Amino acid sequence: MRAADTYGVSDGLPGYLELAGTVRMGTEPGVAVGPGTVVAMPTGGVLPPGADAVVMVEYTAEAMPGTIEVTRPVAPGDGVVRADEDAVAGAELVPAGRPLRAQDLGMLAAAGVTGVVVHARPRVTVFSTGDEVVPPGTGQLRPGQVRDATATALAALVTQAGGAPVPGGIVPDDAGALEDALRGALATSDVIVISAGSSVGARDETAAAVARLGPPGIWCHGLAIKPGKPTLLAECAGVPVIGLPGNPRSALVVFRLIAAPLVRRVGGCTSPPAEPVVRARLERDLASAAGRLDVVQVQLRDGLAVPLFGPSALLSVLTAADGYVVVPEEATGLDRGADVDVTLYR
Amino acid sequence: MRAADTYGVSDGLPGYLELAGTVRMGTEPGVAVGPGTVVAMPTGGVLPPGADAVVMVEYTAEAMPGTIEVTRPVAPGDGVVRADEDAVAGAELVPAGRPLRAQDLGMLAAAGVTGVVVHARPRVTVFSTGDEVVPPGTGQLRPGQVRDATATALAALVTQAGGAPVPGGIVPDDAGALEDALRGALATSDVIVISAGSSVGARDETAAAVARLGPPGIWCHGLAIKPGKPTLLAECAGVPVIGLPGNPRSALVVFRLIAAPLVRRVGGCTSPPAEPVVRARLERDLASAAGRLDVVQVQLRDGLAVPLFGPSALLSVLTAADGYVVVPEEATGLDRGADVDVTLYR
Repeated sequence: MRAADTYGVSDGLPGYLELAGTVRMGTEPGVAVGPGTVVAMPTGGVLPPGADAVVMVEYTAEAMPGTIEVTRPVAPGDGVVRADEDAVAGAELVPAGRPLRAQDLGMLAAAGVTGVVVHARPRVTVFSTGDEVVPPGTGQLRPGQVRDATATALAALVTQAGGAPVPGGIVPDDAGALEDALRGALATSDVIVISAGSSVGARDETAAAVARLGPPGIWCHGLAIKPGKPTLLAECAGVPVIGLPGNPRSALVVFRLIAAPLVRRVGGCTSPPAEPVVRARLERDLASAAGRLDVVQVQLRDGLAVPLFGPSALLSVLTAADGYVVVPEEATGLDRGADVDVTLYR
Repeated sequence: MRAADTYGVSDGLPGYLELAGTVRMGTEPGVAVGPGTVVAMPTGGVLPPGADAVVMVEYTAEAMPGTIEVTRPVAPGDGVVRADEDAVAGAELVPAGRPLRAQDLGMLAAAGVTGVVVHARPRVTVFSTGDEVVPPGTGQLRPGQVRDATATALAALVTQAGGAPVPGGIVPDDAGALEDALRGALATSDVIVISAGSSVGARDETAAAVARLGPPGIWCHGLAIKPGKPTLLAECAGVPVIGLPGNPRSALVVFRLIAAPLVRRVGGCTSPPAEPVVRARLERDLASAAGRLDVVQVQLRDGLAVPLFGPSALLSVLTAADGYVVVPEEATGLDRGADVDVTLYR
């Protein structure tokens, strides 16, 4: 309709307009709106020539065949969405640097964009090391052997961080073999992750092998974090190399905190999606050394964060946990009853 | 070592023990521990016969070749992890009803479990309806046509909810055609989602087509939620059928709130992972009708939740949003400065 035809109408003083026709969905209107006339149209239909507003059907009635009673006034533009209202020509539909969300894909589809150039998933080669480590498929273990739990778990975390995990396999405790394996992976990896041997000697061998790969080399060997102290961070021939602690539990904690953000960043993600965090009250005192970040696994029970303890070799502490609490570097612990942020696993 | 051999030792009064040999990683120890002797071993090695504790190398020194000085006492079991400490025989390694997390996969790998029976992804068939709707790949639109944004976005949300999206295609505004399409999908779908026509007539036709599919039929048609009022919930021949509003933005809001939890549940997920939520202060007053749930899109800026408004047909409100705030049914609005929970998109 023309908005001017509705000025001053009300329930008590309706306006009466002549029905000139109907607009069908998905087609150009075959009818125009002149003074004193209206056209019936569905939501989403095209505004016919001459019309400048739409009144909701709820505020109209068919007074007699061909005559529409209108009880609400409308202003020009009411009920109308312009063709360029969602996006004007040249507009940025979706910003770079973040994963595409459902609505982003919808917006692209609406604009007829059925393909976009995205960042390649970073190839993250994951090595396990250790003479004691055998593939998960190994049925009967010999004394001293352990199945490789870390590589499987890390592959899942790499995928979650937007990367493509590349299995590097299990390398024996032999600096030469590790160096060869790492060197071979440099050309085909965007990030290299080593689940290092857990013994002191194996750690040193890992560091020595990484150091020989090329400049700039090792950034640091040892972090003020628990668990995760023996973490090694390096860059060799442009490829970030992360040496994780040998204990599966420590390795997973360090990967989430340090390696996952790196993988995201290498994958072009500058605005990573938020982790789910809930606030809870600490169920007991937590001791912590100042100058060290403590990552404490917790279970949530009725709004309480219940710390889980146990040797760092145990994965069951992680599988039992709902999330973790970080005790900051400057704190010497947290008191029972303190409000803590629990980052939830997913 | 034997813990008894370390009782009473200290920095001032070290104990001296004879080095009987070395344990190698991944093999059975070839040496035993007798009274007054120690064996060198790496972290993760097998405890040799006769030993009942391990002292950290940091608290030892080689006093002279073959003689180890110990400055810290240990108790039986110190430094030892039992073979069944992570999981005893018959233990549940990972509970059913939640997505497998990285550490769960690690635990399974450690136990030699390389395959598990999981719930099949629910097949979620997504139909779009409307004479005006054309595929996203359509280059030049004719007047009145819109590209199908909803199906693309819904497929992403279905995947996020653990389902397998099945494209049902675009069905014209014709109750017979829709009924045929729905009936054809019943046998091969675990959930059916219809992005319904936006016109009143199209909505009614959708409801009519669903009603004819079979008992128990339509549970409700209309929800006290904004946006999302014309939502239709039904069950036909054991298959949940959800009719979403025609506006893409409303459809995505309703899918997240109502259909996604349903898809998760149909997929066997009784403990869904938490959504990321942050607390923020509301930047302005929000009006809301009591008796209706309001879902308000917001942007986060410096701890403020800034509401985004605009016609419900606009997807750009959703692509600009960082998350949403739910104004509960019983509230008549929220005041500027109020603390609100913002559920973040990812």
